[in-house]
Amino acid sequence: MKLCLKNAKIGILDKENHWSIIDGNVWVKDGIIEYVGDQMVSGYEEVDCENNLLLPGFVNAHTHSPMTCFRSLADNKPLDKWLNEQIFPREALLTEEDMYWFTKLAILEYLSSGVTSIFDMYFAKEGVAKACEEYGFRLTMCGAVNDFVQSVPEMKELYLKYHNYLDGLIDYKLGFHAQYTTDDALIGEIAALAHELKEPVFTHLSETKKEVADCVTAYQKTPLAYLCDKGIFDYGGGIFHGVYLSDEDISLLKEKHIAVITNPSSNLKLASGIANGDKLLKQEILMAIGTDGAASNNALDMFREMYLTGTLSKVINEDACAVDATDVLKMACINGNLLLGKADVGQIKAGYKADLVLLDLKSPNMQPVNHILENLVYAGAKSNVKFTMVNGKILYRDGSYLLPDSPYTVYNHCNDIVKRKF
Amino acid sequence: MKLCLKNAKIGILDKENHWSIIDGNVWVKDGIIEYVGDQMVSGYEEVDCENNLLLPGFVNAHTHSPMTCFRSLADNKPLDKWLNEQIFPREALLTEEDMYWFTKLAILEYLSSGVTSIFDMYFAKEGVAKACEEYGFRLTMCGAVNDFVQSVPEMKELYLKYHNYLDGLIDYKLGFHAQYTTDDALIGEIAALAHELKEPVFTHLSETKKEVADCVTAYQKTPLAYLCDKGIFDYGGGIFHGVYLSDEDISLLKEKHIAVITNPSSNLKLASGIANGDKLLKQEILMAIGTDGAASNNALDMFREMYLTGTLSKVINEDACAVDATDVLKMACINGNLLLGKADVGQIKAGYKADLVLLDLKSPNMQPVNHILENLVYAGAKSNVKFTMVNGKILYRDGSYLLPDSPYTVYNHCNDIVKRKF
Repeated sequence: MKLCLKNAKIGILDKENHWSIIDGNVWVKDGIIEYVGDQMVSGYEEVDCENNLLLPGFVNAHTHSPMTCFRSLADNKPLDKWLNEQIFPREALLTEEDMYWFTKLAILEYLSSGVTSIFDMYFAKEGVAKACEEYGFRLTMCGAVNDFVQSVPEMKELYLKYHNYLDGLIDYKLGFHAQYTTDDALIGEIAALAHELKEPVFTHLSETKKEVADCVTAYQKTPLAYLCDKGIFDYGGGIFHGVYLSDEDISLLKEKHIAVITNPSSNLKLASGIANGDKLLKQEILMAIGTDGAASNNALDMFREMYLTGTLSKVINEDACAVDATDVLKMACINGNLLLGKADVGQIKAGYKADLVLLDLKSPNMQPVNHILENLVYAGAKSNVKFTMVNGKILYRDGSYLLPDSPYTVYNHCNDIVKRKF
Repeated sequence: MKLCLKNAKIGILDKENHWSIIDGNVWVKDGIIEYVGDQMVSGYEEVDCENNLLLPGFVNAHTHSPMTCFRSLADNKPLDKWLNEQIFPREALLTEEDMYWFTKLAILEYLSSGVTSIFDMYFAKEGVAKACEEYGFRLTMCGAVNDFVQSVPEMKELYLKYHNYLDGLIDYKLGFHAQYTTDDALIGEIAALAHELKEPVFTHLSETKKEVADCVTAYQKTPLAYLCDKGIFDYGGGIFHGVYLSDEDISLLKEKHIAVITNPSSNLKLASGIANGDKLLKQEILMAIGTDGAASNNALDMFREMYLTGTLSKVINEDACAVDATDVLKMACINGNLLLGKADVGQIKAGYKADLVLLDLKSPNMQPVNHILENLVYAGAKSNVKFTMVNGKILYRDGSYLLPDSPYTVYNHCNDIVKRKF
């Protein structure tokens, strides 16, 4: 498939790694960006971008796709009760087939929000991958080992199967649910696997005050210090949430090249707290952004997360200059790919995979046209998404999906499962 | 004009003042809701709601519409510098004609977000009202007196002209910018006018720590206590922002029947702080929600504000149960009308004015259908708006505007003004 995306305002990074917007065309051939510039090409299907903004697609760097299942089933609960009383018992009822359908529902929502790639942690074996493969949606699965589900040998098997699968459309990273759900011996096994495979590890960490306090009581160390001592992050990795990080924790993040994936809206709704993005950026910690699952959030909307990532850091630091919008945009478009080790995704540049989003600048919230990128972070919304392209294919355009199923087929399956099981 | 909105899920308030959803039809005749129930009617144009959710339109209870002009012109500034260095000098260059066009731009954005009515504070004389009248959009103007613009006699003149104008499509309330921009004598004059007209008064109040501290230094009183002593709120009224309120302030709000209009996203972006909605609700203070102006926010998006109103109170109180979603929805649909004294707007009930929004439940973020109203607050987005009706007329439907101008005409005028003046 050969496409020429013409008349676009193209968001690229200049030599100093700053965002720059150029007017031009992007040629896409067999899923790869072939050319970016002012020339046209013959024999390619033309897509007129009408001077709208073309950006690298958003990476949702922490989510649990099948949890669309629990959306608004149990709101207004604190994290521990929500997890133990509402979520875990219902999760136990989910089959791979259920998770496949709820992942499809999540993909519909991702595409409507300009998301082209997800880093998904769930205890599914095949369901999530099958849905993404069928829809041609970019997925990196994250191990979800803990004391109750998924073993380390099972994680290794999934890693070997899905590591750089389908030319990287599907991928796999090691991970475990959290220090507080994973016992000491199991954490040792995970660290051993990370050493064996020389792979980074990802986990929920320092999401709540209680979690940190409990770990300090048990081990006289913060969860991060404890896991570093266990060798979990000897090949790098990342932590999801990172709300309660001490200065020593931040030094460890830097030393061990551990990224922080922030999930601001989930942290608000579960009353967990507010991560200090400004402090992390000043220490040059790699930051990316995730929605978390639809059970806690409840929307898989990267515009909301971008807005919050920028503005919550301003308010907690009492500094309206904290966390620049263009940094937030890097977190959303670029850093997610960096932390997943995807060197060929996340920029609009020849040779990169064509994961792209076109954003409507002719909507009222984008007018008048002052500072486009800042405005996208502070005023952008899902309604601005004109199209979302993954691996060179437009999967969503002007509110319609170009996928093998109708959305109604997905909705019907999902509602049926909820009715039958909960 | 006679319309039958059929096959809707209709959000109404039951006898206990709780939200309830009924399946049925709504007949609208000459701008008024004539009937709500399961019967059909002949001779009315039928609009099929396809089992989507029909709610009273959102009231944006604090905004500065012409400030769309400054959207993303000056981000990343603290409130005092932003106001004094960036906004005030540019505002001085705006004509009534300019404000008319930027208000039109704002209305386009409001309609796309399900907003049917605004409470707008600006120093315009005719521009804002003219735009709303032309578009058939419901407006209550708020006086904007301060030491630099608008006098009390001028406000009285505007009040007399616009009070319950065009059968209440346009209305006017007394107001002034803020205690810190209005000297003692002028505040006395405003209070005298409130007494003369027996009218409530509205103002920005306790938005920043500095504002409160400065007032306490000058008068040994909080801004609210100071204004109450001056008699400003003897006929009630409301305060915009209300971020820093003492317990004594909250007692005063209750005693004087003063409403609080919260503006969460503006308070985040300007790093002003976070209002404690939970505390106010527990004291039965009437709360409504506003976007504030597009210069500080930067989007006029009530879905964002509803989400933040609910979840920010959870996080600052460390209580995931703080501020129920259904209370947030009352603030957005109903309370804004109550504080403006509009007894015939804000419910889907025979005899009420037909200000309505239809919300798409067949979008992925609304699936599966668990708790609809909670989900709307936590996951809803502008992209869910199917139509927005004001005074019985659909002004926005499926992404298109049914207005006298094309949006491009508005965009061109607005961009031209920005280019010429700033």
